[in-house]
Amino acid sequence: MANQSAQLGGVFYALGDPTRRAIVGALGRGPASVSTLAAPFPMALPSFMKHLSVLEQSGVIRSRKVGRVRTCELRPKTLSRAEQWLAQQRSIWEARADRMSAFVERLHQEDIARGNR
Amino acid sequence: MANQSAQLGGVFYALGDPTRRAIVGALGRGPASVSTLAAPFPMALPSFMKHLSVLEQSGVIRSRKVGRVRTCELRPKTLSRAEQWLAQQRSIWEARADRMSAFVERLHQEDIARGNR
Repeated sequence: MANQSAQLGGVFYALGDPTRRAIVGALGRGPASVSTLAAPFPMALPSFMKHLSVLEQSGVIRSRKVGRVRTCELRPKTLSRAEQWLAQQRSIWEARADRMSAFVERLHQEDIARGNR
Repeated sequence: MANQSAQLGGVFYALGDPTRRAIVGALGRGPASVSTLAAPFPMALPSFMKHLSVLEQSGVIRSRKVGRVRTCELRPKTLSRAEQWLAQQRSIWEARADRMSAFVERLHQEDIARGNR
């Protein structure tokens, strides 16, 4: 449970940066080499590699090296976990909003009943 | 667009911390005063207030002070935007996975047709 929470934290932290979100967007279209991924970003390769490292450590992407080429790919299950957490929060909140509506409606009906007495 | 990206970044950054995620979980059950929210957390109030400040600046929560009591509440629309971004990435990825499956299936059918020739 503590591990799951730490992993979730790592994913949200990784997605907190615009370069890393752009990398996720690019990898959604399929695996890509580091040099292809890096090309559109106006930054030095070591800085770009640090972003990849944060994404890989959080489990959002994985990479493997074949010869001299390192290829990265998305790990969609990791992103799904973050999406599920947010959906869970929404469902807690919506359940509460529904109970609130039902309560207000009951008050309203009681008011009407009192008026009819 | 740049502002939306910055806001999204702020939300993900805010959710990168376990205390802040726990606060979001607590506020899903309804608005609460700072002192009620802070009670379960083993940290000094100023540290806790910093977490609230990060959540408020990212738009995940809002707070207002009436007399001496500051009350916090969730802003579910902000969380929805983060959830939508993740859902969007998933749909890009799934569309690609579907195209890949269709391609593999076509190759398979072509192999069968070739075998039947």
